[in-house]
Amino acid sequence: MQERQSSRNIRLLIAYDGTDFAGWQKQAAPSRTVQDEIEKALEKIHKAKIKLTGSGRTDAGVHAAGQVANFYTSINSIKAHKFIPALNRLLPSDIRIIEASETHHDFHSRFDAKYRSYRYYIIPCCSALPWELRYAWQIWRKPSLEKLNELAGLLHGELDCTLFSVPQDKSLSRSRYIKNAVFWADGKTIVFEITANAFLWKMARSVIGTLLFYEEKNISINEFKAILNSGNRSLAGPTAPAHGLFLWNIGYY
Amino acid sequence: MQERQSSRNIRLLIAYDGTDFAGWQKQAAPSRTVQDEIEKALEKIHKAKIKLTGSGRTDAGVHAAGQVANFYTSINSIKAHKFIPALNRLLPSDIRIIEASETHHDFHSRFDAKYRSYRYYIIPCCSALPWELRYAWQIWRKPSLEKLNELAGLLHGELDCTLFSVPQDKSLSRSRYIKNAVFWADGKTIVFEITANAFLWKMARSVIGTLLFYEEKNISINEFKAILNSGNRSLAGPTAPAHGLFLWNIGYY
Repeated sequence: MQERQSSRNIRLLIAYDGTDFAGWQKQAAPSRTVQDEIEKALEKIHKAKIKLTGSGRTDAGVHAAGQVANFYTSINSIKAHKFIPALNRLLPSDIRIIEASETHHDFHSRFDAKYRSYRYYIIPCCSALPWELRYAWQIWRKPSLEKLNELAGLLHGELDCTLFSVPQDKSLSRSRYIKNAVFWADGKTIVFEITANAFLWKMARSVIGTLLFYEEKNISINEFKAILNSGNRSLAGPTAPAHGLFLWNIGYY
Repeated sequence: MQERQSSRNIRLLIAYDGTDFAGWQKQAAPSRTVQDEIEKALEKIHKAKIKLTGSGRTDAGVHAAGQVANFYTSINSIKAHKFIPALNRLLPSDIRIIEASETHHDFHSRFDAKYRSYRYYIIPCCSALPWELRYAWQIWRKPSLEKLNELAGLLHGELDCTLFSVPQDKSLSRSRYIKNAVFWADGKTIVFEITANAFLWKMARSVIGTLLFYEEKNISINEFKAILNSGNRSLAGPTAPAHGLFLWNIGYY
């Protein structure tokens, strides 16, 4: 799948504003995708098509602060970190390369990823600035952090995540290993971080939507446990909007 | 000009992300403008056309953190501060009402303004995140703060600003009173603030472009003084892009 015959394997750390993208993954034109924009920039540098392997997809409108991807290059004259300015000068300003480093020949951004972290930003009622609203979800009430963390505490360890899945999901198993799921306040903003070995399609946004939905209902911990175990997708809360979500970090060890 | 027959005069403090606007001032459709969006929201609340008076125009792509505007209302049932959530629920997320207060009957956002402050954000080479680049100008070098402030120090007091004007400018006088013009570092970002009684069209962006242009040439203070006094518009530096500029504050006393 990757072009392993080339000699150097370059790993990139990438940030993007997902607002104007149809997501990470390359699609049929005229969809604008992050992978496609970076591959076009790599093609200009290499004067040849270069395949970029990402750690995983992000959906339309979802941002990334720490996406990881790698590509093989046969260019020997560019030091790894020089790919940062070389790519950034060619890329649109809503994608930035943060780091570029030489990695071992077999490194694979997706297969080698041990866990993924997402962050979700919420601005509770009522004050928010326009530049905050592009990267956070404004909700018109003040949720209880304590209750949110009580419910989030159940998302821990090996978990059947069917509740947070979509009917079209083709995954063989809907079980995922959740390392942490926690809320905290950062000034007026509420931040939610969830880390798992992998995520089902739209799972992160379903988790946050469901936690807020049941926090508002002030559900008991036992009732929420029963809903989690039911695997009944119709009991999930409304999926939270994409623009509050950031792919935050990919862990490789 | 303002609808003074109505009994209450409401003053708004407004922030907007200028990226997707053709500026503040109402224009012929299909241009999207900030004034027009707020007037449409006011019309929904009042079930009648309401004229909004702003402190001044901002150009396409220019942001505002502290635009001021006022309108007359005949509605007595809404407390002034309740216009904040009422308007914000109707407005697109790239405009936010920050404050709304009852002001004296004769207050006029434009005629009563004593000075205006603009801020310009610059990110020197080379690292920037996508969400920073929407609100700052990335330049591919590291300018000298000391030199910039040396040159900016000449922008003080009553000044013929012809150098920073555009040929189409219809102002009767191109002289403006500059209160301060100063650069400082905020982390990796360079911030420029300029305060004057009023600004010529595109003047703020011409000032920052010209200061950076001559800082790079390491011009002497006397040479720069001669250029300022020349009023020769062809000696101005390239106008800086709109997306780094914020209308920051309007002073009324």
